[in-house]
Amino acid sequence: MEEIFDTAILGAGPAGICAAIYAARAGLKALWLDGKFVPGGQIQDAYRVDNYPGFPGISGIELGETLGNHAGKLGMTPLCETVTAIESPWEPVKAICTRKHRYLTRTVILASGATHRKLGIPGEEDFEGMGVSYCAACDGAFFRGRTVAVVGGGNVAAGDAVFLAGLCKKVYVVHRRDALRAEKGEQERLFACENVEMVWDSTAQKIIGQDQVTGLQVWNVKTGEERCLEVDGVFVAVGTRPQTKLAEDFLELDEAGYIPAGEDCVTHVPGIFAAGDIRGKNLRQVVTAMADGANAVYSAQRYLTGVTK
Amino acid sequence: MEEIFDTAILGAGPAGICAAIYAARAGLKALWLDGKFVPGGQIQDAYRVDNYPGFPGISGIELGETLGNHAGKLGMTPLCETVTAIESPWEPVKAICTRKHRYLTRTVILASGATHRKLGIPGEEDFEGMGVSYCAACDGAFFRGRTVAVVGGGNVAAGDAVFLAGLCKKVYVVHRRDALRAEKGEQERLFACENVEMVWDSTAQKIIGQDQVTGLQVWNVKTGEERCLEVDGVFVAVGTRPQTKLAEDFLELDEAGYIPAGEDCVTHVPGIFAAGDIRGKNLRQVVTAMADGANAVYSAQRYLTGVTK
Repeated sequence: MEEIFDTAILGAGPAGICAAIYAARAGLKALWLDGKFVPGGQIQDAYRVDNYPGFPGISGIELGETLGNHAGKLGMTPLCETVTAIESPWEPVKAICTRKHRYLTRTVILASGATHRKLGIPGEEDFEGMGVSYCAACDGAFFRGRTVAVVGGGNVAAGDAVFLAGLCKKVYVVHRRDALRAEKGEQERLFACENVEMVWDSTAQKIIGQDQVTGLQVWNVKTGEERCLEVDGVFVAVGTRPQTKLAEDFLELDEAGYIPAGEDCVTHVPGIFAAGDIRGKNLRQVVTAMADGANAVYSAQRYLTGVTK
Repeated sequence: MEEIFDTAILGAGPAGICAAIYAARAGLKALWLDGKFVPGGQIQDAYRVDNYPGFPGISGIELGETLGNHAGKLGMTPLCETVTAIESPWEPVKAICTRKHRYLTRTVILASGATHRKLGIPGEEDFEGMGVSYCAACDGAFFRGRTVAVVGGGNVAAGDAVFLAGLCKKVYVVHRRDALRAEKGEQERLFACENVEMVWDSTAQKIIGQDQVTGLQVWNVKTGEERCLEVDGVFVAVGTRPQTKLAEDFLELDEAGYIPAGEDCVTHVPGIFAAGDIRGKNLRQVVTAMADGANAVYSAQRYLTGVTK
């Protein structure tokens, strides 16, 4: 008879890692899949994580590795396979399809997180990897001693700009409003950087270059003035998009595109749970994703043992 | 003019520590109070914590210290003062009273957690500290080579029994049902201990002794049989009681005695938030308490800046 897993955890970011740890400790027969080789999800892109309690100022890469190792000690290592479909989601036994396999499982924990939003302006796609980046921590080092622009106004944008200011000759921060959304601490660190120039009230219009980026054209929304910033790189930090594609056939999404579920991670499809950044919620942080991972396994256990509430 | 804090965080367990970290990073003027000298809350009582991602198998004391140090690096250290009252909770400025001071604050984050439930049987109070304990990790070493009983059937009871089995000659586990509530992994570890005897279907009736505990009288609920276990110590692990006393005048509690609030930690009193084990929720774990700490600060920030939802 074909093997049936108790649960399939899709994703190896903080939510997936915590779910894997809880599933292992709960003695569940768990399948764990992620499309990437390295665990950590979005934290892999963070130069420095300072708000996961216990690890002040750790690099995202190191944190991802540390968290992954914890799961590994409990016998859980994600298989590197991209999931292509979830079949028979409404049935008691669901199928998870990858390019290589078709796995059977009684429950699914959707923890595939979110990816970077794009600007959608001319030149962005053309120059991706040739001056356009969505990850300062990954690509910043290529721009040492050069001039770059960061587009965005949240914590990630501010953090990226501070990081880049330590490497680059000059950093422009282009934001469409006259104030940042970033936390006060992040803002203070940013404004303390002497080689950062804020480009307020401005939207990015076009990325310019030949083989490589040479400039970013911006438009001041208040004055109507156009300006071309001479930069070697453009770092886009304008938010994230939930990775809901696999679930869209059987789950309705909320207005912002996330999967509606409470803190118990229960969706309206029996046996399917949504954990982490993919779930509709107020605050997307490492700790809140982890809480989801724990809650999703708890809810899956209750579902598997027939406890409905 | 008297100083008014942006927020007062009451409690230094995982929820309070995470709230302190988030409050510091958000640039809030925060007051942080806890009745104990050492941060960590209930994790201080845990011999081994294996489900806080990143720290496999850490001792509770070490984890508490590590988490507290993180807050300390951000300039946050809890003041060791016991809060006696929260005055004018419905006003925009609330007062936090301790025996020494009266502090003014715009918001309050209730994170005082929970304490151990008692059995309420004869001898329990008389022998507290003389054989009766609520913390195997704290007191187990006093019973090295001796015989003890653990009362309870959850994760804490199972974990305590395993820990004690490594120290003691013999460990009885007294549980009123014929199966444990503990996670499968905990159960397996427990049943693998050769010096553990399960006393199923039995309730603790009376703790016996002179100056010290000498026995625990138990009653089999199925057979009606009484039995006296000859033990030197009784470890009580029958759950926890939320520390809601300060809030009972202005907050209605749910049936189980917890403060009703969603995952945003918003209570029905404006500017008052409930985080961690004190809040009514499904799953009480280090990670879920921490998520609450982060959410409570986020909600407090929104309240302080006039964002109502």
